Amino acid sequence: MYSEKVMEHFMNPRNVGEIENADGVGQVGNPKCGDIMKMYLKIEDGIIVDVKFKTFGCGSAIATSSMATEMIMGKTIDEALSLTNRAVADALDGLPPVKMHCSVLAEQAVKSAIYDYAQKN
Amino acid sequence: MYSEKVMEHFMNPRNVGEIENADGVGQVGNPKCGDIMKMYLKIEDGIIVDVKFKTFGCGSAIATSSMATEMIMGKTIDEALSLTNRAVADALDGLPPVKMHCSVLAEQAVKSAIYDYAQKN
Ligand code: FES
Repeated sequence: MYSEKVMEHFMNPRNVGEIENADGVGQVGNPKCGDIMKMYLKIEDGIIVDVKFKTFGCGSAIATSSMATEMIMGKTIDEALSLTNRAVADALDGLPPVKMHCSVLAEQAVKSAIYDYAQKN
Repeated sequence: MYSEKVMEHFMNPRNVGEIENADGVGQVGNPKCGDIMKMYLKIEDGIIVDVKFKTFGCGSAIATSSMATEMIMGKTIDEALSLTNRAVADALDGLPPVKMHCSVLAEQAVKSAIYDYAQKN
């Protein structure tokens, strides 16, 4: 049911945790399942230099968030804003259709954290 | 949002894994979110002597399954069959209403594993 990459990121998620004094913090909820995701960004000169996430969400949410943090690390804000949940799912060699709603959590958390950063600056 | 007991079982889930040559195996899916749960039972003389579970589900699914396995360990089949998701949630000092559907997974997986055992015997 799940690709090897999904299982690998689920078992060994990257960038789990919090960032103290983060420049942007996003928190989003998934209306489909009630799960919550929190995303922390450290931004210097318009570049995402660190990112961490925390979730109580399912394995697919963990795997997509882990992959999403890897995909935006070192990128500009504009590049991070253009990341779609579809691109993250593709990078994981796909998700079961019934689990695509979980990947939305990661995309929205990134956007929400950048929005929080923009409001503060 | 989550009780201390929920967080504790989420961080340190009990009885995660598989049982080889289990006497009963149940697998159920959650129509609300697409998550899957697998439950393994070892039964001797009508008593549940071992139980393990595996899931790709969210933190609430992990916590309720962990608690459910503790509640049925050493119990008779009839006692295990009468376990409700409400009783498991209560034992965890409650779940947010939006996450009650996750606790259904644990109850159904126990019943499904017992049904599998009954069919084989
Ligand atoms: S089921 Fe809630 S994030 Fe996947």
